[in-house]
Amino acid sequence: MIYLDHASATPLSERARAAMEPYLSDQFFNPSSPYLPAKRVREAYEDAKSRIAHTIGAKGNDLVITSGATEATNLAFTVVGQHQVLVLETEHASVLNTAKKFHHDIIKVHEKTGLINLDDLKNKITDDTILISISLANNELGTIQPLNEIAEIIEKVRVHRLKNNNKLPLYLHSDASQAMNLININVARLKTDLLTLNAAKIYGPKGVGALYIAHRIKLSPITTGGGQERGLRSGTENVPGTIAFAVAAEDAKKHLESHRKTFDNFKKIFKTTLIANSKIQPIFLGEKAEKHQLANFCPVSFPGIDAERMIYKLEDEEIYLSTGAACAASKGEKSHVLKATGLSDEEIAGSLRVSFGALNDEAQIRLAAERIAAAVNSEQERLLRD
Amino acid sequence: MIYLDHASATPLSERARAAMEPYLSDQFFNPSSPYLPAKRVREAYEDAKSRIAHTIGAKGNDLVITSGATEATNLAFTVVGQHQVLVLETEHASVLNTAKKFHHDIIKVHEKTGLINLDDLKNKITDDTILISISLANNELGTIQPLNEIAEIIEKVRVHRLKNNNKLPLYLHSDASQAMNLININVARLKTDLLTLNAAKIYGPKGVGALYIAHRIKLSPITTGGGQERGLRSGTENVPGTIAFAVAAEDAKKHLESHRKTFDNFKKIFKTTLIANSKIQPIFLGEKAEKHQLANFCPVSFPGIDAERMIYKLEDEEIYLSTGAACAASKGEKSHVLKATGLSDEEIAGSLRVSFGALNDEAQIRLAAERIAAAVNSEQERLLRD
Repeated sequence: MIYLDHASATPLSERARAAMEPYLSDQFFNPSSPYLPAKRVREAYEDAKSRIAHTIGAKGNDLVITSGATEATNLAFTVVGQHQVLVLETEHASVLNTAKKFHHDIIKVHEKTGLINLDDLKNKITDDTILISISLANNELGTIQPLNEIAEIIEKVRVHRLKNNNKLPLYLHSDASQAMNLININVARLKTDLLTLNAAKIYGPKGVGALYIAHRIKLSPITTGGGQERGLRSGTENVPGTIAFAVAAEDAKKHLESHRKTFDNFKKIFKTTLIANSKIQPIFLGEKAEKHQLANFCPVSFPGIDAERMIYKLEDEEIYLSTGAACAASKGEKSHVLKATGLSDEEIAGSLRVSFGALNDEAQIRLAAERIAAAVNSEQERLLRD
Repeated sequence: MIYLDHASATPLSERARAAMEPYLSDQFFNPSSPYLPAKRVREAYEDAKSRIAHTIGAKGNDLVITSGATEATNLAFTVVGQHQVLVLETEHASVLNTAKKFHHDIIKVHEKTGLINLDDLKNKITDDTILISISLANNELGTIQPLNEIAEIIEKVRVHRLKNNNKLPLYLHSDASQAMNLININVARLKTDLLTLNAAKIYGPKGVGALYIAHRIKLSPITTGGGQERGLRSGTENVPGTIAFAVAAEDAKKHLESHRKTFDNFKKIFKTTLIANSKIQPIFLGEKAEKHQLANFCPVSFPGIDAERMIYKLEDEEIYLSTGAACAASKGEKSHVLKATGLSDEEIAGSLRVSFGALNDEAQIRLAAERIAAAVNSEQERLLRD
C-alpha cells in the first residue's frame, strides 16, 4: 500500500496507542469519582491537557477537550452571537457551514496561491465584526495563511475601535488541524485568540480534538450537563483519547523539523518524477506560494484527465489518494477551494490531493509518481483514441 | 480492589476492546475517503451502527452516533425550539441543565420510590408541550420509570390534540444510559421517540454514545460541518469507538438475564450482610420500588453517618464507591435526586450509591458489606465518644 492521503486521516502512532492502553483497561475510572484511583485518572487527564496546551504555548486550563476539530470550531463560533463573523472562502466545511448560522461574510483568497486577500479582509471588517476565522493551513492545498499579518490588521482595528469607543472585541480563530504536524504553533506568537486542534490528523486517535481559548473570551457551551471542562463541554471526559492526544501532540512538536525535511525531499522527488514521466504537464497547485505550503502537501492537476477515474485506477495498484476533502468529495461536490483559487472546471476535474506522511518512504514516493504518470498517460491515450 | 461504582464508569470489556483494535491500527482510514480500504471502514462503521440499533429494535439510519450520552441528549432537545419541555426532577444534569435552555417545567416523583408522579405529569402537559424527557432508569437510585404508562398518557394527549386541531407533536425522550445493561430495550415497545445511549456505561469505550431518532422527527444539528450522520452531527466518525460500542451493546443484550440474576443475588447478600453487621439500621433507598429498581443498584443510607468520610475510609481498604453522580458529587452538590425522594438532610448526608457490575463476585460483595458495616460502626462509636 502507498498511502498518499495523510490530510484525510493519519494512523494512530504506536506511542500514542501505548499511552492510552492503561486507560482502556485498568484505569477506566470516571475522573470525577471521589476515590484515589479515580483521582489518579483525573490527574493523568489534566496532565495530558497541560501537555497538549504546552505544545502550543498555552496552559491546560486554556483548553477545552472536544470530540474533534468540528466540535471545537463550533464551540469557538459561539462567541459570535448576534455579531458578525468573517471566514475565508477556502475554509473547511466545519468553518463555512458554521459561519452560515450567523451574520457572516466571506473573505476572498488570491488566485493560484490561495493566500488570503488582505485588502478584502480590511474592506470586510465592519464595526460589528467580532470574529475572523482563518485556518492556519488549508486542508486541500496546504496553503499556510499569514496569521501574523492578519493579527496586525486586527490590532489596528482594535486600536481604532478603542478610539471610537466601540467596545466590541475582535477575535482571531484559526483551525490548525492540518498544520500541527509541520508548523511550530505558539498562540502568543500567532496572536490567535481561539485555536482548533485535532488529534486524528497528527497520529492521535479519532474522536478527540481541542479548542484553545484565550483568557478573556466568553463562549457558550454547545452541550450542557454535568459541567465538565469549566462548564463549556459537559460529558464524561474521554480520558484514553486525551492521553493519546497528548503524546501525539508532543511527538508532532518534537519532529517538526525532521518531518519538514523529509517531506520537502518527498515533494521534490514526487514533482520531478511526475514531470519526467507524465505526458500531460502537471500543474502543481498552490505552487506559487510554495514557501507558504505545508511540506507534506503536493496537490496536482492534470487538466483534461478525470481525477476520479484515476483514483479508482490507482486503487488497483494499492495507491490511495483523494480528490479533496473526504467529507466533501464523498458527496460528489466540486472543490470550493480549487474554484476559489481560480482553477478552471477542467483543472478542478483533473486534480488530485496528494499528502505525504509517516507511512511513506522515498521509494514509495518515486513509485507512486511513476504509477500516477503512467495512469495519466494511459488515460490520455484512451481519450485520444475515443 | 472491590469496585462498587459501576454506575459511574464501567471497564472496557475484552471483547469490545478486541473489536476496536484493527481500527486503532491498520484500519485507520477516513470512512468518507473514496478508495477501497476506506470504503471497507465505512462498511464496518455502518454495520456497527446497525448492530447497535438492532439491540434496541431499530435500524442503523435511526441512530446518530455522538461523543456520549450528554451530547445525544442535547441533540434530542433541539426538537424543543420555542415550545415546552417537561423533565423529571430526578433526571441527570445532562437533562436538567439542557431543559433550562428552553421553556420547561419539572415533573415530581413520588417520595421513597422515586417513581414518576403520573398525575403531576398529566397536570403539567400543556398545549405547547412538545417533549417529555424521562430516563428509563435513574442514575442514583436505579429507579426504573414506567415508560409504558407515560406513553399511554402521551397517546391520549395526541388524540386530544388531533381533535382540537393542535398540530404540535408530543414526543417522549428517554435517557437509557444506566438501563441498557439490565433492561431489554425496544423502542417500539417502550414507545420512545428519542432514546439516549452511552457506550461507557455498558463496558464500551468512553467518548461514544448514540441518539435513536424516530423517523418523523426533525432535529437541528448542534455541530455543523462536513455533514456526517445525515447532517445532524458533523465531524469525522469515531470508527473504533463505534465498533467497540456495537460489541458492548450486543453483549449487554445477550447477558441481560444472567446479569439480572447475578445482581439480584449480590443485592440479597449485600443487604443481609449489612443488616446483620451494622449497628445503625441501613435504609435501602428506592426499596419500596424494588421491582422498579435496576438489579445492580443498591443505594443505602446510614442516617447520622458522614458518607463522604466513609468513602475515604473504605478507600483505604480498596473498596470504591460514591455518594452520587460523579459529576455532581465532585462539585460537593447535595443530591437533588435523594432530596426529591423526600430524604432528610441527615439521610442524604449518610447515603452511599452502591452499584454492582462485571468486576464483582459474591465473595467481594459479602466482604464489602462487612467492611462497610464495620466502617459505619466505628464512625458511630467515634460520634458517641465525641
